[in-house]
Amino acid sequence: MTSKKSVGQRQWVFSFQRGDSSRKDLLGNKGAQLAEMTAMGLPVPPGFTITTEACLDYYRSNKRLPEGLWSQVLEALKELETASGRKFGDPDNPLLVSVRSGAAVSMPGMMDTILNLGINEGIADGIGRRTGNGHFALDIYRRFIQMFGSVVMNVKSDVLDVVMDEQRRKAGVGTGAELSPDDLREVIARLKLLVKKDARADIPDDPMTQLNQAIRAVFESWNSRRAIDYRNFNKISHDLGTAVSVVAMVFGNLDDNSCTGVLFTRDPSTGDKTLYGEYLTKAQGEDVVAGTATPRKIAELAKEKPDIHRELLQVTGLLEHHNRDAQDIEFTVEQGKLYMLQTRTAKRSAKAAIKIAVDMVQEGLITQEEGLLRVAPDQISQLLLPRLDERAKERAKSEGRLLGRGLGASPGGATGKVVFSADTAAELGKQGVRLILARPETKAEDVHGMLVAAGILTGRGGATSHAAVVARGLGKPCVAGAEGIEVNPEGGYLRRGDVIVKENEEISIDGSSGEVFVGSLPTILPNVSEERELAILLSWADSTRRLGVWANADYPRDAETAIAFGAEGIGLCRTEHMFFEPERLALVRTMILAAHASNQRPDDKLVKEEYHATLDELSRFQVSDFEGILRAMKDKPVVIRLLDPPLHEFLPSYEELLTEVVELRSNGSSPVTLREKEKMLASVGDLREANPMLGLRGCRLGLIYPDIYAMQVRAIVTAASNVMAEGIQVHPEIMIPLVGHRNEMRRMRALLEETIEKIQKGKADKVSYKIGTMIETPRAALTADEIAETAEFFSFGTNDLTQTTFAVSRDDAEGKFLMQYVEDKILPEDPFKVLDRKGVGRLVEMAYKLGKQTRPNLTVGICGEHGGDPSSIEFFHAVGLDYVSCSPYRVPIARLAAAQAALRSSANGGVLAIGD
Amino acid sequence: MTSKKSVGQRQWVFSFQRGDSSRKDLLGNKGAQLAEMTAMGLPVPPGFTITTEACLDYYRSNKRLPEGLWSQVLEALKELETASGRKFGDPDNPLLVSVRSGAAVSMPGMMDTILNLGINEGIADGIGRRTGNGHFALDIYRRFIQMFGSVVMNVKSDVLDVVMDEQRRKAGVGTGAELSPDDLREVIARLKLLVKKDARADIPDDPMTQLNQAIRAVFESWNSRRAIDYRNFNKISHDLGTAVSVVAMVFGNLDDNSCTGVLFTRDPSTGDKTLYGEYLTKAQGEDVVAGTATPRKIAELAKEKPDIHRELLQVTGLLEHHNRDAQDIEFTVEQGKLYMLQTRTAKRSAKAAIKIAVDMVQEGLITQEEGLLRVAPDQISQLLLPRLDERAKERAKSEGRLLGRGLGASPGGATGKVVFSADTAAELGKQGVRLILARPETKAEDVHGMLVAAGILTGRGGATSHAAVVARGLGKPCVAGAEGIEVNPEGGYLRRGDVIVKENEEISIDGSSGEVFVGSLPTILPNVSEERELAILLSWADSTRRLGVWANADYPRDAETAIAFGAEGIGLCRTEHMFFEPERLALVRTMILAAHASNQRPDDKLVKEEYHATLDELSRFQVSDFEGILRAMKDKPVVIRLLDPPLHEFLPSYEELLTEVVELRSNGSSPVTLREKEKMLASVGDLREANPMLGLRGCRLGLIYPDIYAMQVRAIVTAASNVMAEGIQVHPEIMIPLVGHRNEMRRMRALLEETIEKIQKGKADKVSYKIGTMIETPRAALTADEIAETAEFFSFGTNDLTQTTFAVSRDDAEGKFLMQYVEDKILPEDPFKVLDRKGVGRLVEMAYKLGKQTRPNLTVGICGEHGGDPSSIEFFHAVGLDYVSCSPYRVPIARLAAAQAALRSSANGGVLAIGD
Repeated sequence: MTSKKSVGQRQWVFSFQRGDSSRKDLLGNKGAQLAEMTAMGLPVPPGFTITTEACLDYYRSNKRLPEGLWSQVLEALKELETASGRKFGDPDNPLLVSVRSGAAVSMPGMMDTILNLGINEGIADGIGRRTGNGHFALDIYRRFIQMFGSVVMNVKSDVLDVVMDEQRRKAGVGTGAELSPDDLREVIARLKLLVKKDARADIPDDPMTQLNQAIRAVFESWNSRRAIDYRNFNKISHDLGTAVSVVAMVFGNLDDNSCTGVLFTRDPSTGDKTLYGEYLTKAQGEDVVAGTATPRKIAELAKEKPDIHRELLQVTGLLEHHNRDAQDIEFTVEQGKLYMLQTRTAKRSAKAAIKIAVDMVQEGLITQEEGLLRVAPDQISQLLLPRLDERAKERAKSEGRLLGRGLGASPGGATGKVVFSADTAAELGKQGVRLILARPETKAEDVHGMLVAAGILTGRGGATSHAAVVARGLGKPCVAGAEGIEVNPEGGYLRRGDVIVKENEEISIDGSSGEVFVGSLPTILPNVSEERELAILLSWADSTRRLGVWANADYPRDAETAIAFGAEGIGLCRTEHMFFEPERLALVRTMILAAHASNQRPDDKLVKEEYHATLDELSRFQVSDFEGILRAMKDKPVVIRLLDPPLHEFLPSYEELLTEVVELRSNGSSPVTLREKEKMLASVGDLREANPMLGLRGCRLGLIYPDIYAMQVRAIVTAASNVMAEGIQVHPEIMIPLVGHRNEMRRMRALLEETIEKIQKGKADKVSYKIGTMIETPRAALTADEIAETAEFFSFGTNDLTQTTFAVSRDDAEGKFLMQYVEDKILPEDPFKVLDRKGVGRLVEMAYKLGKQTRPNLTVGICGEHGGDPSSIEFFHAVGLDYVSCSPYRVPIARLAAAQAALRSSANGGVLAIGD
Repeated sequence: MTSKKSVGQRQWVFSFQRGDSSRKDLLGNKGAQLAEMTAMGLPVPPGFTITTEACLDYYRSNKRLPEGLWSQVLEALKELETASGRKFGDPDNPLLVSVRSGAAVSMPGMMDTILNLGINEGIADGIGRRTGNGHFALDIYRRFIQMFGSVVMNVKSDVLDVVMDEQRRKAGVGTGAELSPDDLREVIARLKLLVKKDARADIPDDPMTQLNQAIRAVFESWNSRRAIDYRNFNKISHDLGTAVSVVAMVFGNLDDNSCTGVLFTRDPSTGDKTLYGEYLTKAQGEDVVAGTATPRKIAELAKEKPDIHRELLQVTGLLEHHNRDAQDIEFTVEQGKLYMLQTRTAKRSAKAAIKIAVDMVQEGLITQEEGLLRVAPDQISQLLLPRLDERAKERAKSEGRLLGRGLGASPGGATGKVVFSADTAAELGKQGVRLILARPETKAEDVHGMLVAAGILTGRGGATSHAAVVARGLGKPCVAGAEGIEVNPEGGYLRRGDVIVKENEEISIDGSSGEVFVGSLPTILPNVSEERELAILLSWADSTRRLGVWANADYPRDAETAIAFGAEGIGLCRTEHMFFEPERLALVRTMILAAHASNQRPDDKLVKEEYHATLDELSRFQVSDFEGILRAMKDKPVVIRLLDPPLHEFLPSYEELLTEVVELRSNGSSPVTLREKEKMLASVGDLREANPMLGLRGCRLGLIYPDIYAMQVRAIVTAASNVMAEGIQVHPEIMIPLVGHRNEMRRMRALLEETIEKIQKGKADKVSYKIGTMIETPRAALTADEIAETAEFFSFGTNDLTQTTFAVSRDDAEGKFLMQYVEDKILPEDPFKVLDRKGVGRLVEMAYKLGKQTRPNLTVGICGEHGGDPSSIEFFHAVGLDYVSCSPYRVPIARLAAAQAALRSSANGGVLAIGD
């Protein structure tokens, strides 16, 4: 019989030599890559990885280390000592290790890492003796204390950071390297005191205790607030756990022949195929990442250490080829020897993602299908990010409003009120304030503020600093390391010389050029056709997708934008937006009041005359609106929706009128004005509704006020005729909103056909048109077979369909409970952004099937906001819809998403996952 | 070869001898019954019937008589001449006929009939000579002109009616019988002149032309406004058409040995088994029906003409037995010989319907199942009609407010403003004004006013007068023939002696006792348990139905009523109604404002304390509310719904506050009040919603303000414990409103269970409870399988489910478009009254199946308004629901409807018709 402990005991620990590099789930991304690099024969320091299962077990068993873990760690540590030729805890030949977190999904900077572990005063002395470099030994000890103090003992890191700064000031030196050993001893003593005071415990001197506590701390960091926030934001499961890698330390800060660096195999901003990164001589990795010192470009390494640079080129090329994607790599050189510490898929800007995908396809490294799947559709929207207007920038410069310049760390232009703390940003962001978060440097604890900021500005740090990496991930403009600008959170200001910008004043940043301006500068949208690689990618997408991509456009200029972005039709032209144009609103109001009066007093001829006169006048506006859109879209279909919103939406606010009336009454002045206002108040009172969303709108308007719909349809056909006369073939499609019963559709169709017949009578060149409906109420979906009897096309209005299926008014819910629902995971997503497949999706599927059953050649599209959302597009593809229609600026996104949907669907044999 | 005309020519005309009495669809009800009575050998004057198909063909072929019809009429007329021994158009031995309308479905008084047709001046002279009774001959000629003038030539009947009245006044006599032949000749001349002037045509003298035009006129009357109104109201198809019966005239007005009458085989008010009706000696049928003279009771005929009375008893008994139902019979005695002119199923009051059904079952005439199907469930609601409070009546009498007395023609008490024209009534009725329509007598053209009146009062006419028959059909209180009261439409008043009631003043009528009071008297609801036959019928229903019948009750007194009406549980107890009680509202408001503030400032301890203090206070009220209901229901289940409406519904109106604030500002006075009001205005502004129906309500409240739900559930369990301590076994079921996602149900269940566990901890006698949900959003129905995971019962909230499925807000729609939709037949019914089977019904069915799939022992009920609607109950039975819950007063209706649903469903093999 074997002992109790070994019976079926799990293996919690794998050395890099023994780890199965395909088991990212078990070893984490970092651990798996270290094992992989070891297997490839690349220079990796020895080490071992504790599995994610151990982390999960730790949480399951009430935060106790899994049984057997510690003994396996001790065993692995022995191996490590053998491999490194050093001994953990031996002052004469000490093995120091780094303890690194690493989940299956990369979460850069979100969890904790501790370097130089296994040190104490005695061991530091030993290292000093052994290396003959007391300063080095004291410096790594000092770093260990700072890291262990903050990560394991939960002392706020900025409390500890201050000590070095103060010592530098006191000693009158610029960098830590210039401090004397006595200075460093004083720093160490003060750090220990601070930790003890804050944590009410000493930093353990025993290396084993350090290791044990560090492993626990890394486990704990999986559920730190910032890690949870990050996972929520990035939709990463909370059930993965983190692995822990324990790696023999190599020191980039040992001497001038040592350095440490971070690089990308391709430029993460532009995608150019060139090593891109930074390194610092005589420094530890954290110095580069944290941005506390400004490092040198990797290209300079070719001059400084040509051998190392050559070796790096070779190794990183190997890694990119092996992993078939651009890599983000950490390396350290210790006394002239290169060590690879980490490789992972490189985060990249949208522009880079597209260029890298297209280049790699063209290099033959990946297939076209893979290339299409490499770019997240939403990344394209980053490419379409607004930029600061160049002319405005020139003007601002000439006016002396250029505050300074930093590194263009994440592209795009942003303007907003400057704020100096993440908490303030989060607070204001909730209220919808546009803001720029400015920090000396950012840390993980600032992420919640970065999430809501329009842009980010830091005073220190490079292209791989925390701020830069996170901003690129979020697709937000970022200017990093703007050293000429003093970012002063305590004082609440930015300053350069005499120029001071206080909190809540406006600034503008350009994340490409790195410029920072005082005041608000106008932003403009980029020209997509200039993006060569995007055009290639989208052309591949177009030949891959089955779904058509149309656009929602209310004005000729929108239609032109849509065409430029590749739209194949207009899926929704909302006629009411034309009603809201300021020059027409007064006319629209007169018309509405006359329409209402005419329905109430059908025998009043004067009222009827006014009603029809205003309709005729409006008709002229509508004709020219429709001409513009039809002309822009040429032979492409244009779906025009008849008036949808309740009429009172066009009238003055009831409450404003009430206020005016009460005031006029109290003042007792101008009885004529009072009477007029009272009359208007009464009319608005008559027309307003308790639940306008569910009121007299859509085709109900068409049935109660048929003359309005008749006017609109006359305008459509007249416009079409006029454009046809110019030799352009047009395809107007008339869409009836909010149909819920076959009889509504029948009557509306009859009214419209009769009207159209009348004006086309005797004309040689007749306009061909279709009449269809939006499916935006549950009843329409449930009885789609009946509605299809008289509808030639369906277009899902998924905004309203979501509102009615959930019984949720978006206007009310968003601020009152929907955000909290998503935060609390009651709903997996905001259903107004990502289609709810189980509820709304089911209705969409039913309606599609029922409609096609009645009319096999029924055209079915979707024109709700979901038409531009990749996950929803995947669903619409799977259901079989003919097209999605989205805002013009989302057309390229939809084109790519539709292609990905086709690829994924054929990969899955057409089976669609219905989520929660 | 046969001639073209006879090839395949349809038979449009059937003599009474040859008609197939089972073909009501073809011969109309009247024609079929005349054929049937002829076949039975009963004394029926000879005649023939033109088919409903002929009428339909007439409309199809642009109002031309069908080919072959006229020649068939002429042939049938020949047979008629033979059978009667008289000749149509022969002055010496003239055959006169009546031309009578008659559809397959009885529409009493809705279509037209012309008597004495085939007469002209010469023929009238001939009749005078032949009968030796010039007065008689002139009188029937006069009647013919009046009827032909109004029915065929469309002259308003009251224009013609005036002539006789004036002549009587001129001659100084009381009745038409006292007029001299010269008087009558003058009347005839004036009538002819009036017709010519109004219709611009003479009344044709040629009998054949008369007949031809009369047949067309009857066809036309099928589509008269009043016939269409009636069919719409009674949901009769417009595609049936009317038959036309041409019957040899027999004259009840020939001499003193002649009479005419109308009778019911059982009392149509009480159901008593006794001949009930009236007759007039020396009169024509129209005199009885129109109520122009006050006739004698049928019992008096036994003294006046005992032979005839005996024969009538025998014949009517035969007819009732043959038709297996109470009959409404017209007869005429001509010179001592009895003729049966019509028999049809008798219209009857609710009370009579129930008594007749129960009696006939007990007499063995029909089966119990037939008995159950004989009573329309809605008739029971008539039995539950309010009655005038007896004590109030006594008081009113002592105060001299008894205006007069007529015939109690249709039971129930009503109060309202008196109006004197049907048009005014229709107008005011639309505005929701409660009114009593008072007319000297009513005619078919008054029906649209009767439809909206709360009660009807006439100055002339008996129990079978138009007003009485229509009122009974509509289930409205009616006092007919109140001869002591002058009903003066021209003057716009009622008068008895010095007492004058002007239009728009309040009166009260008692349709049972026939009393009319000045002013508004309180009404009370009857005690059902005193209705013996109803109790029997309902006991049969209970043993027949499968569906449970529960009641919606918010207060202990409602629960008691529900029990008295036979409810088997409480399906919906709305806790918010308790919140609205005046004594609690201030407390509720304080609680809400504190809850809101506490969510906004979670760290504010004072606010939180106030929140919890008010909740505790409310809890005490809720405990005693729940105790009352649980105590009343004893061992029956009580479903208590947690707070549902949006919180702002409990707060003061935003607009009133705004008005007050603006006024206070303008006045510049009391700054403290202003500040307070402004604060309240801001809070109400925060909480109010654009679409409250789709806002922060239902379980969303429970998730955002969990303390409120926790308080309610504590109160429920505490109340249950207290009542259990009294030795009563209770079954509270806690219902979560507006669930749309499984996670909402999960979280709510967890919250409630945790709360309940806490207060039950350590108690020996634990309350057993269920937790379930309302299914009232489409998403809940679509994902009912998931929701059933944590819900032990479902209750369909079909009101909200209809609102969301249709995307129709009932509050807004009812006045703005829903009524017009139903009027215009866009919707077949108001979907808030009768369940929409195709849309909402489909969701109900899906949810039922999905729910049972997850949880086979799931209890499923419905607590929307549809729970009391017979057609909807039929649907719920077919779907398989466990119970319906409706308002206490509809419980008996639901019990009967559920039994009928079971009977019909088993008759149809369980197949359910889904309508439009």
